[in-house]
Amino acid sequence: MLSGFVEALNFPVPEIWRELTENFDERAALVRECRELAALAFEEKDAEAHARLHDVLTDVYAYEFSQAAAGSPDLDTQPVLKDVVGVLENAVLEDEFRQVPEEWLKDYPTDGKGYVRWLKAHIQNHPAASHPMYSTRLAEAPVDDIRFLLAQETSLDPRFDDILAVMQLGARGAEKMEIANNYWDEMGNGNFSEVHTTLFSQCLDSIDVDATYIEENLLLEAKECGNISAAIALTRRHYLRAIGYFGVTEFLAPRRFRELVTAWDRLELPAVGKTYHDIHIGVDAKHAAGWYKNVIGPVIERDPDAGREIALGTFVRLNTSQRYLDRVLAHCENRAA
Amino acid sequence: MLSGFVEALNFPVPEIWRELTENFDERAALVRECRELAALAFEEKDAEAHARLHDVLTDVYAYEFSQAAAGSPDLDTQPVLKDVVGVLENAVLEDEFRQVPEEWLKDYPTDGKGYVRWLKAHIQNHPAASHPMYSTRLAEAPVDDIRFLLAQETSLDPRFDDILAVMQLGARGAEKMEIANNYWDEMGNGNFSEVHTTLFSQCLDSIDVDATYIEENLLLEAKECGNISAAIALTRRHYLRAIGYFGVTEFLAPRRFRELVTAWDRLELPAVGKTYHDIHIGVDAKHAAGWYKNVIGPVIERDPDAGREIALGTFVRLNTSQRYLDRVLAHCENRAA
Repeated sequence: MLSGFVEALNFPVPEIWRELTENFDERAALVRECRELAALAFEEKDAEAHARLHDVLTDVYAYEFSQAAAGSPDLDTQPVLKDVVGVLENAVLEDEFRQVPEEWLKDYPTDGKGYVRWLKAHIQNHPAASHPMYSTRLAEAPVDDIRFLLAQETSLDPRFDDILAVMQLGARGAEKMEIANNYWDEMGNGNFSEVHTTLFSQCLDSIDVDATYIEENLLLEAKECGNISAAIALTRRHYLRAIGYFGVTEFLAPRRFRELVTAWDRLELPAVGKTYHDIHIGVDAKHAAGWYKNVIGPVIERDPDAGREIALGTFVRLNTSQRYLDRVLAHCENRAA
Repeated sequence: MLSGFVEALNFPVPEIWRELTENFDERAALVRECRELAALAFEEKDAEAHARLHDVLTDVYAYEFSQAAAGSPDLDTQPVLKDVVGVLENAVLEDEFRQVPEEWLKDYPTDGKGYVRWLKAHIQNHPAASHPMYSTRLAEAPVDDIRFLLAQETSLDPRFDDILAVMQLGARGAEKMEIANNYWDEMGNGNFSEVHTTLFSQCLDSIDVDATYIEENLLLEAKECGNISAAIALTRRHYLRAIGYFGVTEFLAPRRFRELVTAWDRLELPAVGKTYHDIHIGVDAKHAAGWYKNVIGPVIERDPDAGREIALGTFVRLNTSQRYLDRVLAHCENRAA
């Protein structure tokens, strides 16, 4: 049934959706199938089930972050879609949450400034903060490593504007403005030639990373990162976790991107492809500072209990980033060997 | 059960949600109850059922457009929520769609420029375009009329930034930029004192329209407009309808707001409260022009069939605006008599 669901999402037939939506026995069966897949993936540690589960979620988020639904305006996919997402996405996130030790999430300072200092120290001390893929490997990497790495990054970067747009829903004051500002930077501050998704495409084009290459090389760990990013932004109950999670992304980008740009220069790759990473070195340093000062700090001042959720999101991002870069590095080293 | 659903949304208890989400017999019963309410409201024309249905949707959208969900990050409300919305929202929209004659939706020009000209002519010719509430009544209205009118407008204006943020999801190029630009204007182009929601609050404060006054005076027709606006923006399969619908909002705002500002000056109301409407006279004229040129025109060039859906959204907005202003005008005249 789950295969049928994915196919119905990609090739929508109104009658099939209407029938499925109204038949609660079938829906219960579909949810059971999702639970079985999740149990296989996370309790039995079945690799195939794990990959299958992430493939389904990848299709769901591609649909949700596109205008695909507008192609069939009379087709209401949401009730069944949320049933499926409710099981699969929650299983993925709960597996991540379990990997964050409870002692990392307590005894934090409950004032805004103190909390931010505490959180940043934890980020700096996490092995993902200066991962050898960036800090060592890139210094000597061949161009193939850069192509491989950037192909993986397509699972998050091309939808970062939309992630910010969703995150700011219902926020207020300085918190909303900080996220809005960030979104507007992604949109090139209104200049088409500086829209970040355009610059990222230019970057990929300049080193021949096309759709076929990406499809052939995308790691499960990259899909995982993409799915978790989508889940934590789109499912709005995770807002506090999301501000922790995406804070890490902004905080670690400048250092990582500087190392990438250094490699880019060393390899004399096309200058036109460098802009995306080059501008993020400065822009993201500013964003990270603003994010912790105007979003995370004030949220803690308003509600100290939020510190647990913000830290949880922070560590989930650090852990997944670590796992992902470990795999990218292993792949690059194996190919070289 | 539907009362239980609304209460569970406003006062969330994790166990209740988990039980309900997993019990497909109960969910089928809840959906049946929603269908019965919708049938009462729209087939039997039962006024009480109609009001009840809109009250439920008002609560749902208030939840969706706020950060309420983040208060219970482990509570997944979405599967059941989408079941309820799927029935009630669709019943409301289908009732509106039925009121748009099929002949209004065909024989339109299939090139971008021609279509935009055709659509704008239809808007200008619709009775809502120069409704007597604005074009006649406001010229002599007492301040109470203005207070009453602006209380109704709270059902849409305070969430217009978020509506634009959701609408631009997955859009590309000039289309995305136009909506993004519009969003950034709502955010005061980064200046806190010019954020539109702030200016709108200032406007309400300056003539003592507070939460109590709004609650006591909000018309069912205002809730309807608020719910339809929320539905058409949040439920993303309606994207083409949404760009038609919100195009009307931008297109008619300058004239309406000029008439409001004239009345404001005549009544010598506090200058601080005027800014919101004053700036929209110029800003929305620019936005409307950009919206038709950069969003609607190119969409038609890309896919002429989209013309039907864009026109449908356009007429739904004109019809609902007309009904709403009829009721506001009747209320003002009755009180005066």
